[in-house]
Amino acid sequence: MLYMELLGYVAGMIVAVALTPQVIKSWKTKSTKDISMPWTITLIIGLGLWIVYGFGINSYPVIITTIVEEALAVTLLILKFKYG
Amino acid sequence: MLYMELLGYVAGMIVAVALTPQVIKSWKTKSTKDISMPWTITLIIGLGLWIVYGFGINSYPVIITTIVEEALAVTLLILKFKYG
Repeated sequence: MLYMELLGYVAGMIVAVALTPQVIKSWKTKSTKDISMPWTITLIIGLGLWIVYGFGINSYPVIITTIVEEALAVTLLILKFKYG
Repeated sequence: MLYMELLGYVAGMIVAVALTPQVIKSWKTKSTKDISMPWTITLIIGLGLWIVYGFGINSYPVIITTIVEEALAVTLLILKFKYG
């Protein structure tokens, strides 16, 4: 079961940092026309609830990985607002 | 604790379907230039591992919501390959 737990952490961390290249690309190209604003907003709401859930069940892995993902999603939304 | 569990399901489902407006937008505009391919590929790998983890811990909520999200991510990657 230890392997499974490790797999859970690895999978969670990969998903959490996955947005990094998207944020870098949007930052560099200053172009976010093809990015869907409803996607970023829905994601931010969902991740926000997920953070509350993480605190509710006292799970640091959930809280920490989700805060990383939320920070990336909020950054992307700011870039989307800025570059349209 | 029941409320917390419910919150977990709601949050998970919101995150899982969040990509829907992005897929619809990319499908309609046939433009995915601003979408980062490394993002979609990293997401697909992470979600794939997450599905394995879901089976490993026998969690249907994890399996089902992640398969939905994975299907959306794969669709987006196909659109990205198609429209560049």
